[in-house]
Amino acid sequence: MRIVVAAMSFGVAAGVSAQMKPEDMIKTRQSGYTFMAWNMGKIKAQVVDGSVPFNKDQVLAAANVVAAVANSGMGALYAAGTDKGTGWKETRLKPEFFQEQDEVRKIAMNFIQQANTLQQVAATGDQAAIKTQFGEMGKACKACHDKYRREE
Amino acid sequence: MRIVVAAMSFGVAAGVSAQMKPEDMIKTRQSGYTFMAWNMGKIKAQVVDGSVPFNKDQVLAAANVVAAVANSGMGALYAAGTDKGTGWKETRLKPEFFQEQDEVRKIAMNFIQQANTLQQVAATGDQAAIKTQFGEMGKACKACHDKYRREE
Ligand code: HEC
Ligand code: HEC
Repeated sequence: MRIVVAAMSFGVAAGVSAQMKPEDMIKTRQSGYTFMAWNMGKIKAQVVDGSVPFNKDQVLAAANVVAAVANSGMGALYAAGTDKGTGWKETRLKPEFFQEQDEVRKIAMNFIQQANTLQQVAATGDQAAIKTQFGEMGKACKACHDKYRREE
Repeated sequence: MRIVVAAMSFGVAAGVSAQMKPEDMIKTRQSGYTFMAWNMGKIKAQVVDGSVPFNKDQVLAAANVVAAVANSGMGALYAAGTDKGTGWKETRLKPEFFQEQDEVRKIAMNFIQQANTLQQVAATGDQAAIKTQFGEMGKACKACHDKYRREE
C-alpha cells in the first residue's frame, strides 16, 4: 500500500500541492532532506560511531522522522522545471530526474521501503540490526544523489 | 514517557548534538519547521479549506511528519547563543527563549502532546475530529511563535 502511495506521489500528485510556487517546492524538499540528514546523523552517532551512548528512544524517534519524511509524498515537490530555481539556495536537482521516471520511481520506492524497515528495526532496539539497516538506508539515499543531485 | 523526552530535550540534550555548529542548528530547526508547515498545509487544504479532496492516507502521512518532527528532540537545536546567527537565513529566535525555560518547556510539551493527538485522530479518518485537532495543533505552534519567534 505504501508503495502505491509512493508511485502515485512521484506521478500525478498534482492535487496535493498545485498551489505551491516552484521556489517553495525547492525550499521544502531541501528542508525535508536536511531534517532527515540530522536524524540519520543521530542514528550514526549512536549505532555506528558510538560517539554518543545508545538510547533506544532517541534512535527510534530519529527513525520515525526518516520514515515519516519518506512517506510524505515528496514527489509533489518535484514539478517539471524545478531542476532550475532557488529555494533556500539554488537547487541541486539534475534535469535527468524528469527524463528517467521509471528509474526515479524505483529509487523512490526503495527509499520508502528502507525507511519503513529502519523504523521497524529501530523499534526492536537491536543495535547490530539497526547498524546494518542504517547502512541500507544510506545506500538508498546515495542511489538518488549519485544520479539526480548535482555536486556543489 | 514522551513528556520526559521533551523535558529532557529542552534541557540537557547536549550529548545528542554536541558536535553541531550553531549555524547548522539554526538551519536544521528552520528545516524542521518548514517541512512541518508544508504538512500542516496539506491537512488544512483537505480538512479545513476543502480545496483538495480528503484522502485519509495523505492526511495521516502528513500528521505522521508533524508528530515525528515534534518528538525528534529539537531542543538539542537550541544551544545557548543561537538567538543570533544564520542558518538558511538569519534566525528569528528571540533571546527570551533562553530566559523563560519553564514557559518554553510548557509550550514544547503541549506541542508534542497536540502532535501525538493529531496523529491519533488522523488515523481514525474522522474529518470533523481532524479539523478540530488541526485547530489545536495550530494554536500550539502559534503559542511558541507569539512568544519566541521574531517578526520578519
Ligand atoms: C528520490 C531522491 C532522493 C532521495 C531518496 C534522497 N535524496 Fe537527498 N536530495 C535529493 C535531491 C534531488 C536533493 C537536492 C534538492 C534540491 O536542492 O532541490 C537532495 C538534497 C539533500 C540534502 C541537502 C544538501 C544541500 O544541498 O544542502 C541532504 C542533506 C540530503 N539530500 C540527504 C538525504 C538523506 C539523508 C536521504 C535519505 C535518508 C536522502 N537525502 C534521500 C534527492 C534524494
Ligand atoms: C517550541 C517552539 C515552536 C513550536 C512549538 C513551533 N515553532 Fe515554528 N518556529 C519557532 C522558532 C523559534 C522559529 C524560528 C527558527 C529560527 O529561525 O531559528 C520557527 C520558525 C518556523 C517557520 C519558518 C519560518 C521562516 O522563517 O522561514 C515555520 C514555517 C514554522 N515555524 C511553522 C511552525 C509550525 C507549522 C509549527 C507547529 C506544527 C511550529 N512552527 C511549531 C518556534 C516554534
